[in-house]
Amino acid sequence: MGWELEESIYRRIATTTPTRILYLVFDGLGGLPGPDGRTPLEAAASPNLDRLAREGCTGIFDPVAPGVTPGSGPGHLGLFGYEPMAVEVGRGVLAALGIGFPIRKGDVAARFNFCTLDAEGKVTDRRAGRIPTEKNRELVERLRRSVRPPEGVELFLETVAEHRGLLVLRGEGLGHRLADTDPQRTGVAPLPARALDPSSERTARIVDEIVAQIVEQLRGEAPANGILLRGFDTLPDIPSLSDRFGLRPVCIAQYPMYRGLARLVGMEVPPAPPSLEALPGSLAEHWEGHDFFFLHVKYTDKAGEDGDPDRKREVIETVDAMLPAMLELEPDVVVVAADHSTPARLRAHSWHPVPALIWAPGTVLPDRVESFGERECARGGLGRQALRHLLPQALAHAGKLAKFGA
Amino acid sequence: MGWELEESIYRRIATTTPTRILYLVFDGLGGLPGPDGRTPLEAAASPNLDRLAREGCTGIFDPVAPGVTPGSGPGHLGLFGYEPMAVEVGRGVLAALGIGFPIRKGDVAARFNFCTLDAEGKVTDRRAGRIPTEKNRELVERLRRSVRPPEGVELFLETVAEHRGLLVLRGEGLGHRLADTDPQRTGVAPLPARALDPSSERTARIVDEIVAQIVEQLRGEAPANGILLRGFDTLPDIPSLSDRFGLRPVCIAQYPMYRGLARLVGMEVPPAPPSLEALPGSLAEHWEGHDFFFLHVKYTDKAGEDGDPDRKREVIETVDAMLPAMLELEPDVVVVAADHSTPARLRAHSWHPVPALIWAPGTVLPDRVESFGERECARGGLGRQALRHLLPQALAHAGKLAKFGA
Repeated sequence: MGWELEESIYRRIATTTPTRILYLVFDGLGGLPGPDGRTPLEAAASPNLDRLAREGCTGIFDPVAPGVTPGSGPGHLGLFGYEPMAVEVGRGVLAALGIGFPIRKGDVAARFNFCTLDAEGKVTDRRAGRIPTEKNRELVERLRRSVRPPEGVELFLETVAEHRGLLVLRGEGLGHRLADTDPQRTGVAPLPARALDPSSERTARIVDEIVAQIVEQLRGEAPANGILLRGFDTLPDIPSLSDRFGLRPVCIAQYPMYRGLARLVGMEVPPAPPSLEALPGSLAEHWEGHDFFFLHVKYTDKAGEDGDPDRKREVIETVDAMLPAMLELEPDVVVVAADHSTPARLRAHSWHPVPALIWAPGTVLPDRVESFGERECARGGLGRQALRHLLPQALAHAGKLAKFGA
Repeated sequence: MGWELEESIYRRIATTTPTRILYLVFDGLGGLPGPDGRTPLEAAASPNLDRLAREGCTGIFDPVAPGVTPGSGPGHLGLFGYEPMAVEVGRGVLAALGIGFPIRKGDVAARFNFCTLDAEGKVTDRRAGRIPTEKNRELVERLRRSVRPPEGVELFLETVAEHRGLLVLRGEGLGHRLADTDPQRTGVAPLPARALDPSSERTARIVDEIVAQIVEQLRGEAPANGILLRGFDTLPDIPSLSDRFGLRPVCIAQYPMYRGLARLVGMEVPPAPPSLEALPGSLAEHWEGHDFFFLHVKYTDKAGEDGDPDRKREVIETVDAMLPAMLELEPDVVVVAADHSTPARLRAHSWHPVPALIWAPGTVLPDRVESFGERECARGGLGRQALRHLLPQALAHAGKLAKFGA
C-alpha cells in the first residue's frame, strides 16, 4: 500500500538530531465564513500567526480523505503522521482516553449505559432516564465494591457522565472482538456477549458473568437497574513516534482525550497545564530533553461545537498573543495545524481540509501567503495534501530526514 | 491499496438522506487556449456557471493519474468515485455500451472488423476496404439468420459502423479471457481463438466454430469475406452506487455510451432526452424518487473532437442558459465537472486535468474564484485532486457522509 511504502522510507531515513519542532495544534481550527464573509481564523487579529505564515509555507490538509469528517482519533493520528484509515482507535479506547483512564496494551475496554429493565428483564429505557452523573458515581462506587471478576482478571468501572460509563477488563489472554450487548431498541432483553472471533469466547463468558453480577447488585435501583455494553475494543498496537522517527516527544495538553492519544503514540505526558494561559510556561518547563512538542489547544473546537464564532476568534487571538513567548525558546521548526475543521455554523466536526503552516527559517520556501487563514492557505505553496504528510515535512525542515537513495 | 482503504471508509460512513445532488458533466470540457488566449470555457458567456463558481468552491481533477489521457470509461468511473485504474471496462463492453446493446453480466463481448481474405485464407485488408455501414448492416442481417451457435449459447451480432461490429455470446460458463484473432497485419491467416485461462477454453472453441460459419456464409462477399475479433471481455462486477453509498441515482443522458456506463454503476436510466434542450425537462421529470442526478452533455466533447472551439463555447453557453431552470428544482448540491479534457486544438481526448466546481450553500467555503474556467479552477480552494475524490466531497456537502471515528 502507498502509505506502508512511505512509512518504510520515512523510517529508514529518520535521524535523531537536537533540533526542536513546536507542533501547535488548534483543535477544530477550520471554519466557514460568518455574515462578514470571514472565518474566525481569517477575522482574528493574529499578527504572530500571520508572521509565521508570511515567513513560512502554507497549505491545506485532508485529515483522512477528501469528504471524510474525522473524529478526534483519526484527526490526531493524521497529525502524528499515521494513516488514520489503517490504524483505528475504537470507541471503547477513546472513551478510556477521554476520561484519562490509564489503559494498557491488552486491556479490553467498552462503553456502557445504565439502562432500565422491566420485571421480565426487557429494556424499557436504554439510558436509564439519563440519571445524573452523581447517581452514576454512587452506583459505580457500589459496583466496584461488590462485583467480583473471575480469578486472574481485573475489572475497572468508571463513570463518564449521566448514564454513561466505561468498563475495562485486564488480564492474560483476553479477546476484544465482542458484539455490543446493547440491542439498540427497547422491549427486548439485553443481548448476551457474543464473541466475533474464537479468541474472544472466554471474554464473552466473563462479560456475561460480570453483567449478571451487576444486574443482581442493581436490583431495586430502577431506573438504573441494568447495563448495556457497546464498542468493545483494545489499544491498537502501533509503533511509537520514537520507534518510527527517533523522536523524544512530549505532550502539552489540558484535555484527557488528547493526552491519551499522545500516550498512545509514545509521547511523554507530564501533568496537564491548569489553564490555556499556562501552555507557554509548561512548554518552557519541558524544553530540555525533548525534540518534539505537541501543544494542544482545545477551545477552538469547543467554540465551534458551541456555534460561537466570536469565541473561536478570541481563542485564536489569545493563543496568538502567547506565541512570542514560545518563539523565545527558539524552536527550529514551528508547525501550526489542526486535527479537523469545526465550523461554528455546523456546530460539529466537518470534512473541510484544515489550514496549516510550516515555519523554518533558512529551509522553508515562503509562498507569498500573507496571513494565516483557510483560504490563504488554500493558495499556499504546500498545496493540498493528506494530513499524514505534514509531520514528515516538519521532520525534514528540522534536519531529521536523511537523503533517500544515492 | 490506498483506494481500497478509502472505499471501505466511504462505504462505512455513507448514509442515505433526502438531499439531492445535481451532477452536471460536460464531456471533454477541458480545453487549451485559442488565438485570443482563452479556452472555450474561459471565453464562454456563462453567467450561471460563473455564479456557481463564485459561490462555490473549485479545483482541478485528474481523471486517472497525472499525464494519463482517459477514455470515456475511465473518465466516468472516476467521476462516479471509482478507482479507474482498478476497475477496467474493456473495449468489447464499451463497444456494446456505445451502441446501446443491453449487455448483461456474464456476456462475452468482442469488437469485430469485416476483413478481406485471399484464396488461401490470408488477410489482405484488415478493414475490408472500409465497406459502407449499409453493407455492414446487410451482411450482419444475413449472418444473424444463418449462423448457429452451439446448444445453450446465444449469439448476437451488431453493426457499429463501416467495417466495425460487435459480437456477443451469452450462456452458462463462458470465459472472456481470449486473445484477439486479429493478427494486426496482412499476409497471414486470422489467428484461431486462443484461451488465456482454462475457463475460457470452451469459449475459444465456440468462437472458432462461429467464425468458421461466418466465413462460410461470407464466401464470395469479398472485400468483406472474413472477420477479425478484438478486445474480448465481460462486464466488470463492480458495486453499484447504491451498494456503496445508498444513493438512488438516475441518468439523464442522450448518448448510449454514457447511458450504458450509468447502467454499469447501477443508475436508473430512463429513455433518452430527445435533444440537449430537453435535459432540464427530463431532470424535472425524474426529480422525485432520486437523490443523485447524473446529467451528461455530449456536445462539448464532440466539438473538441471536431476541432471547433467556437462550437464548444456555444454548447457551454447553451447549457449555461438552462441552469436557472435546473436550479429552480432546488438541488442541495451542484457539481459541474468533466470526464476528461478534449482540446479543440488536439481534436482528441487529453491528459489535462479537468476543472470542476462544488456549489452547496451553507457548507461550502467559497474560494475567491470569480468564474468557471480551467485556470480559475487551478487556483481554487479544492486544489488538485484525483477525480474519484469529487463524488465523496459532493456526498459530504449533501450530508450523506457521517463522521469517521470518535
